[in-house]
Amino acid sequence: MKTEPRTLAGFMELLPDEQIAFNQIKEKIENTYKKFGFLPLDTPIIELSEVLLAKAGGETEKQIYRFTKGETDLSLRFDLTVPLSKYVAKNYGNLSFPFRRYQIGKVYRGERAQKGRYREFYQCDIDIIGDGELDIINDAELPSVIYNIFKDLGFDNFTICINNRKILNGLFESLGQKENSTEILRIIDKIDKIGKEAVIEELSKLNLQKTNIDKIMEFIEITGTSDEKLEKLENLEINNETYKQGLEELKQVVKNVILFGVPEKNFKVELTIARGLDYYTGTVYETFLNDYREIGSVCSGGRYENLAEYYTDKKLPGVGVSIGLTRLFYQFNELNLVSANKKSISDILIIPMLENLEKPIILASNLRKLGVNTEIFLNDKKLKAKLKYADKLKIPYVIVIGEDEINSNTAKIKNMETGEEIEVELDANSIIKFIKEA
Amino acid sequence: MKTEPRTLAGFMELLPDEQIAFNQIKEKIENTYKKFGFLPLDTPIIELSEVLLAKAGGETEKQIYRFTKGETDLSLRFDLTVPLSKYVAKNYGNLSFPFRRYQIGKVYRGERAQKGRYREFYQCDIDIIGDGELDIINDAELPSVIYNIFKDLGFDNFTICINNRKILNGLFESLGQKENSTEILRIIDKIDKIGKEAVIEELSKLNLQKTNIDKIMEFIEITGTSDEKLEKLENLEINNETYKQGLEELKQVVKNVILFGVPEKNFKVELTIARGLDYYTGTVYETFLNDYREIGSVCSGGRYENLAEYYTDKKLPGVGVSIGLTRLFYQFNELNLVSANKKSISDILIIPMLENLEKPIILASNLRKLGVNTEIFLNDKKLKAKLKYADKLKIPYVIVIGEDEINSNTAKIKNMETGEEIEVELDANSIIKFIKEA
Repeated sequence: MKTEPRTLAGFMELLPDEQIAFNQIKEKIENTYKKFGFLPLDTPIIELSEVLLAKAGGETEKQIYRFTKGETDLSLRFDLTVPLSKYVAKNYGNLSFPFRRYQIGKVYRGERAQKGRYREFYQCDIDIIGDGELDIINDAELPSVIYNIFKDLGFDNFTICINNRKILNGLFESLGQKENSTEILRIIDKIDKIGKEAVIEELSKLNLQKTNIDKIMEFIEITGTSDEKLEKLENLEINNETYKQGLEELKQVVKNVILFGVPEKNFKVELTIARGLDYYTGTVYETFLNDYREIGSVCSGGRYENLAEYYTDKKLPGVGVSIGLTRLFYQFNELNLVSANKKSISDILIIPMLENLEKPIILASNLRKLGVNTEIFLNDKKLKAKLKYADKLKIPYVIVIGEDEINSNTAKIKNMETGEEIEVELDANSIIKFIKEA
Repeated sequence: MKTEPRTLAGFMELLPDEQIAFNQIKEKIENTYKKFGFLPLDTPIIELSEVLLAKAGGETEKQIYRFTKGETDLSLRFDLTVPLSKYVAKNYGNLSFPFRRYQIGKVYRGERAQKGRYREFYQCDIDIIGDGELDIINDAELPSVIYNIFKDLGFDNFTICINNRKILNGLFESLGQKENSTEILRIIDKIDKIGKEAVIEELSKLNLQKTNIDKIMEFIEITGTSDEKLEKLENLEINNETYKQGLEELKQVVKNVILFGVPEKNFKVELTIARGLDYYTGTVYETFLNDYREIGSVCSGGRYENLAEYYTDKKLPGVGVSIGLTRLFYQFNELNLVSANKKSISDILIIPMLENLEKPIILASNLRKLGVNTEIFLNDKKLKAKLKYADKLKIPYVIVIGEDEINSNTAKIKNMETGEEIEVELDANSIIKFIKEA
């Protein structure tokens, strides 16, 4: 009796060529994070439930993979933020602040299985954590990281939307609606989906006065360039400290985002984004690929007042963004947007067609020494089967070496994409020269 | 009430500078795997218990992290070989053979916690899987992968020990001890630890005849160079097909390992290594750092007859090796062998000491575009604190930019290791030139 080999629903497992493309995206994200000087972090996937769930509750808690091993109550991490909180609180004395870290790793949520939703998925996070305080200019640096990533992934038409939660909160406070703010945010967050009229209707159900609804609608309908929006926010003349502070912060961020090299066409102030309902306290970000708006935000995050309050008395404000890579890759695939710039691991396949493998093997070693990923086909097959292998693996160059080639010390190198064949000397430098010129 | 932030025993969690060193080793291993044309694979950490444990039993099964979520019986992977088996059986029709894959990922074993033993640890595996058959020359390629990795990690004095299980099995068969072979192997495997006399004594307890014990001792005491050992094995005149086949394979491997560029001083035939007791069926490998023999084998593996017999009728022979990276890193650390060639992520820290950050930020962007990992210190601190930050993060170069520097368009770049300071023009190319020359 054989066991049927199968993979759990909601767990991504790719074929090699898809995995190569996935890894390239992952590497590009990681390289950009490193380019901005973020430090690597790798925390355990399993944590004590008591530690991991110090803050959690509600929906999140239901989705946790939680179990006991021996006597110990364990959980799998469901994001990379809680492990970061734990890590910073635990290692506070050994870290330098601002602590800039990136982490790319798998997290686990037992969501209801459906197409495009994963229970195991990669998150790619960066956060900047301050000790006691963190200058607002840090909030302006993150959009430039996002910008560089999506440019590097080959996109041009995307928008990083920026807002500040204090503006929303201050507005609601000024209307005497502080208690309703969560509910109001939830409603106006849906304006793209349900439209203006439905939003007004839902707001009315909260027993808001008409003047208040008008003010809210006036607010969320502010249009124009980022600068125009900032001016209109000023002109609303809302006399509330939180509002004023949020507006001031947003101005600072907008001004500096440009300094950080993000073109005006790739970011804008978007007053309706709120990013969840209680975690973020200042700047918030969402990023949209404008030609594929339907896939939602591809990179989100924001500023929070206090990273690790469940673990420490130290005040640790921070700002961060996250990319949900597994879902993003799924979406890219659905939209045929995955275009790896290298489709194979090997740059060249050496196909020996002779008994004595000495020369082909030495050639392979020499190519590798010069930085070329080189595979040598070591199994006894017909030439046709060997070429088919190169073709299926999308290896760009193939060189067949038989007795004749050894004797003449030349061989034909074949560009598998164009079919072009060129005779080269049988040494690593000649081959590399040909590959580079092609 | 704060929750104490803590990490489970047996789970490695590193400080940033250690993590940088860890990642460098991981990257070197991965790059070498890619250089030999192995394809990447990433399988889920959670699998159906029925699938993952199709083969397991005994000790392994006790260590599994196994739990239910909803109605589903789940387990965390305890190695990367079983997931590979499942993957190849499941995707057989979509793979090209020989299927060469690498996988670097975390695995889980609930071992008794002790110093240097981890419950979550990285394995770095490569395997070559044949469809029906796999030429013996593949067994000769893997030592060259191992060789390149440990050279790349800065080691010179290491030995890849090679043996073939068929030689041992054939020997025992010829002595009529096939049934005892597992037991005999277990005993002779201990010769390094317990010595010759104790081995003889333990063998006697198995009711072996003196002539048989003599033959076994004659066998395991064969010394000399690899070639001499092969000759002595020949001269033992053991008339057994398995033995002869194993000897023939071992000869092939030894001959070709040299072709693949492994110097004679870095490998040898070692007739007593057996690598576990039933998984491997032919070639077996262990690798020792000769100056640190006490840490045991740092890279092991071998040939197996049939990868996925629990999932499919297809015969899938393979050969592979694995590096237990987490434990290896721990051991390197204990021995002070971790010497990262880059100790920080950032190549340079820009320290602005002025209000208008425009120039410093643009300089940072330009440096990044030219491939330099560049961090800009964005928080309002005293110069001394900013320099201390660079020092703690071991960032090799620092450039301080104040009003004077902006006005003169020059600044001093400081080599933090030597203390050397040089005045450079305030542009990315001048700075890179200085860094490259230093």
